[in-house]
Amino acid sequence: MIAQIRGKLILKTVSMVIIDNHGIGYEVMIPLSTYYELPDVGSEVSLFVYTFFKQDSILLVGFCTENEKQLFKLMISVSGIGPRLAVNVLSGINSSELIHAIANNDLNRLLKVPGLGRKMAQRVILELRDKVSGWTSKEQITFINNKKDAIDQSVMEEDAISALINLGYKSQAAKDAIDRVISEGGENKSLDVILKKALKVLAM
Amino acid sequence: MIAQIRGKLILKTVSMVIIDNHGIGYEVMIPLSTYYELPDVGSEVSLFVYTFFKQDSILLVGFCTENEKQLFKLMISVSGIGPRLAVNVLSGINSSELIHAIANNDLNRLLKVPGLGRKMAQRVILELRDKVSGWTSKEQITFINNKKDAIDQSVMEEDAISALINLGYKSQAAKDAIDRVISEGGENKSLDVILKKALKVLAM
Amino acid sequence: MIAQIRGKLILKTVSMVIIDNHGIGYEVMIPLSTYYELPDVGSEVSLFVYTFFKQDSILLVGFCTENEKQLFKLMISVSGIGPRLAVNVLSGINSSELIHAIANNDLNRLLKVPGLGRKMAQRVILELRDKVSGWTSKEQITFINNKKDAIDQSVMEEDAISALINLGYKSQAAKDAIDRVISEGGENKSLDVILKKALKVLAM
Amino acid sequence: MIAQIRGKLILKTVSMVIIDNHGIGYEVMIPLSTYYELPDVGSEVSLFVYTFFKQDSILLVGFCTENEKQLFKLMISVSGIGPRLAVNVLSGINSSELIHAIANNDLNRLLKVPGLGRKMAQRVILELRDKVSGWTSKEQITFINNKKDAIDQSVMEEDAISALINLGYKSQAAKDAIDRVISEGGENKSLDVILKKALKVLAM
Repeated sequence: MIAQIRGKLILKTVSMVIIDNHGIGYEVMIPLSTYYELPDVGSEVSLFVYTFFKQDSILLVGFCTENEKQLFKLMISVSGIGPRLAVNVLSGINSSELIHAIANNDLNRLLKVPGLGRKMAQRVILELRDKVSGWTSKEQITFINNKKDAIDQSVMEEDAISALINLGYKSQAAKDAIDRVISEGGENKSLDVILKKALKVLAM
Repeated sequence: MIAQIRGKLILKTVSMVIIDNHGIGYEVMIPLSTYYELPDVGSEVSLFVYTFFKQDSILLVGFCTENEKQLFKLMISVSGIGPRLAVNVLSGINSSELIHAIANNDLNRLLKVPGLGRKMAQRVILELRDKVSGWTSKEQITFINNKKDAIDQSVMEEDAISALINLGYKSQAAKDAIDRVISEGGENKSLDVILKKALKVLAM
Repeated sequence: MIAQIRGKLILKTVSMVIIDNHGIGYEVMIPLSTYYELPDVGSEVSLFVYTFFKQDSILLVGFCTENEKQLFKLMISVSGIGPRLAVNVLSGINSSELIHAIANNDLNRLLKVPGLGRKMAQRVILELRDKVSGWTSKEQITFINNKKDAIDQSVMEEDAISALINLGYKSQAAKDAIDRVISEGGENKSLDVILKKALKVLAM
Repeated sequence: MIAQIRGKLILKTVSMVIIDNHGIGYEVMIPLSTYYELPDVGSEVSLFVYTFFKQDSILLVGFCTENEKQLFKLMISVSGIGPRLAVNVLSGINSSELIHAIANNDLNRLLKVPGLGRKMAQRVILELRDKVSGWTSKEQITFINNKKDAIDQSVMEEDAISALINLGYKSQAAKDAIDRVISEGGENKSLDVILKKALKVLAM
C-alpha cells in the first residue's frame, strides 16, 4: 500500500525512524545498513517502504535503496522469515555479499549473520538461489525513473515475458510470441508496443 | 475507503505503479489496459482506485476510467474471482468486448482470455449477464462531474428507485411511488425533490 | 480513527460521496438526510465521519452534523444493527423524530421506517431509551468549537462525572466528589480545575 | 505506524480529541494528564501517538510527551492491560509517581489508582520493575531531536549494546565487543562508528 515516504527525519534510532510528512509522523523500522546512510535528525529524507500487514498490526519497513527493499521482499518470501529477522539479516551483511553468498551456496558466510541458524540458512539458499542468480545479472525490479530510464533491450524482453506469464499465458507461449515480435522488427520498440503485438500473436 | 489517487507517477511497470501524493508513495496494481494509457514517469496522473481488503493486507487497484473500475467491482463479485484474476481478465480483453461477450453468452470469446477457464467463464456469464445487460444501455454508475452533469430523466428515475430499494422499500412500492411523483409534475425535478416527494408518498 | 474529512466533492450519489483531500479521494457512505444537505459536485464540503472497521474492510460513514454521527453510533451499539441498516434508518426518519419515537416508546412510528422490523424496533427502544432520554435534555457529546464554546454548568458537571466514571471511580463516589467541589466554590470553574479538585478529594 | 500527529485541535473532551491535519480529522484517545496540558480548541497541537491495532479496529492514543508514550507502551506490555486501562492508569497518577511506585514495590500507592485491582497491580510491579528501574537512571528511549541531541557516552554505549542484542548477538558478546571498541579509542565516537567497529570485532 505505502511504498515510499518523503519528509523530515524527527527521530532516529538504530532500528527505527520517525518521518514527518506534512504533520503526520510515520514510524518506520529500518536495517542498520539504512541507519548508516541516514542524515542527521531534522534533514529531509526519502525511504523506499514495504507495508507489512500482520494479523494484529501494520508495520512500515524502510530502506535507502529500492534494491534493498526488493531483497527484503525476497527474504520474507522464505517460510519462517518475518520482517524482524529479515531486517536483522540485512543489518548483519551487506546486500551484494548476501546475494553472492546465496547464489554461490556459501553456507558458512550466511552462518556468520547473527540470528540466522543452520536450518534457516540452508532454506534461504534452497528457496532463493534461482531467484537471486537472475538478480545478479541485472536489477530484478527495473526502477524506471528519471535516473534509470534507459532500459536495455534484454531487460525489456524479460519484463514483457514476465508480464505475459503474470497474465496467465504459458511461459513457452509467452517467449515464442515475444521472439516473433522482436524478429519481425520489434527491436528498440517500447514495452507497450511489444506487449500489444505479442498479445495479438497470442490471440490468433 | 480510498477511491481516487492523484499525484506524480514515480514508478511504472506493466502490473504496478507508484504514485507520489505529497511525499507518500502509494503502490497501485493496474491492468494492462491502464498501463497503455499512462504517461511517462514523472508526469501527473489520477487513477480511479478500488481499496481491496484481504485477510492479511490492503491492496489498491487502479484504473484510468470509472467505468473500468465498476467492471472490476462486478468481476470480483463473482465467487472465486479475486483481484489478481479480475485484473488479468481486464488486461486480456477490452471493456466493451468483455461487456458484449458476457451480455451475449459468447463463451468462446471469454475462453480466449488467459487464466479464465471454462467453468469460471460460464459462472461469469451466469452471475453477470443481467447486471451487465443493464450496463450496456447506460453507465451503471452515474459519474456526476463537470463533464457529465446532464443526467437524463430515465437515469434519474432509475437512481431514485434504486435509492428507495437500498433504503429497504419493496421494489414495486418504490416504482409506484416514483411513477406517481413523476405523473404529478415531477418531470425535470432534481433527484432530491423526487426522492423527498416519493418518501412522503411511501410514508402515507 | 478518521473523524472528519474536508475537501472537494467529486462524486455524489444518494448513498455515497467521494471527497478529494489534497489528491486522495475518500469514498464515504452517507444517509439520505446528509445527501439533501450537500452542495453540488465541485464544492468544498466537510463531513463528520465514523470509521467503521469490519472483519474484511474499513468503511467511512459521513454526516453533515456531529449530532447525526452520535445518533449513528448509538444505533450501531444495538446488537444486530450494522452500518448499512443504521444509515437506512437515519435516511428514513429525521433525527429529532427518531429520538422522540425512541424516548416515548412510539413503536408504530419506528415501524414506518423501511427495513426496521418489529423485533428490531422493540430492541432499539429497549436498548436506547435511557441513553436517548438523557440526549433530549442536552447535546450528548459536547461539540466544543468556536461556535459552541459556551458550555453551561450542568453539562460541565455531567462531563466531569462521566470522566471520573470512565477512569474507574464508582458513580456515587464521582457524584459526591463533584458536588463537594462545586459546593466549595467550584461554580464557573473550568472542567480542568473541577476534575483536578475532584481527583484530590477521591485520593484522600 | 502513525507515531505523531500535528494539526489544529477541533474537538477536546477529557478522554478524546480530534486533530485536523490538512482537512483530515484524526480521533485520538488521551489520558487526563495530556488533557490538562492541551491548549484551547482552535490552537495548533502536536501529540506523540501510539497506533493500537485491535482485532476489529485501529485506535490512536496520544500523549504530550514521548516519555508518557513509552510508559503507555510498557503498561500495555503487561498481560491483561489494554489501551483503555493503561490510559486510565496514566490519568490516575502522574508518570514519575507511577515509575517510582513500580520501582519501589509500592503496592499501596498503585492500589489508589482507580480501576487497578490488587492482582493487576502486583503483576504490573512483577513485570515492569526491572524495565522501569533502568528507566529511572536515564530516558528509556533516547529522543534524538534538536532539543536533545547531546547523547551522553553511557546512553550511547547502552544503545549500541541493545542494537547488537536486537540483531541477534548474545548480550555478553555484545558487551565485550563494545567495551573493546571503547577501550581502543572509541570514546566520543558517534553511534555509527561504534557499531561498525563492534560488528567487525564480532565478525572475527
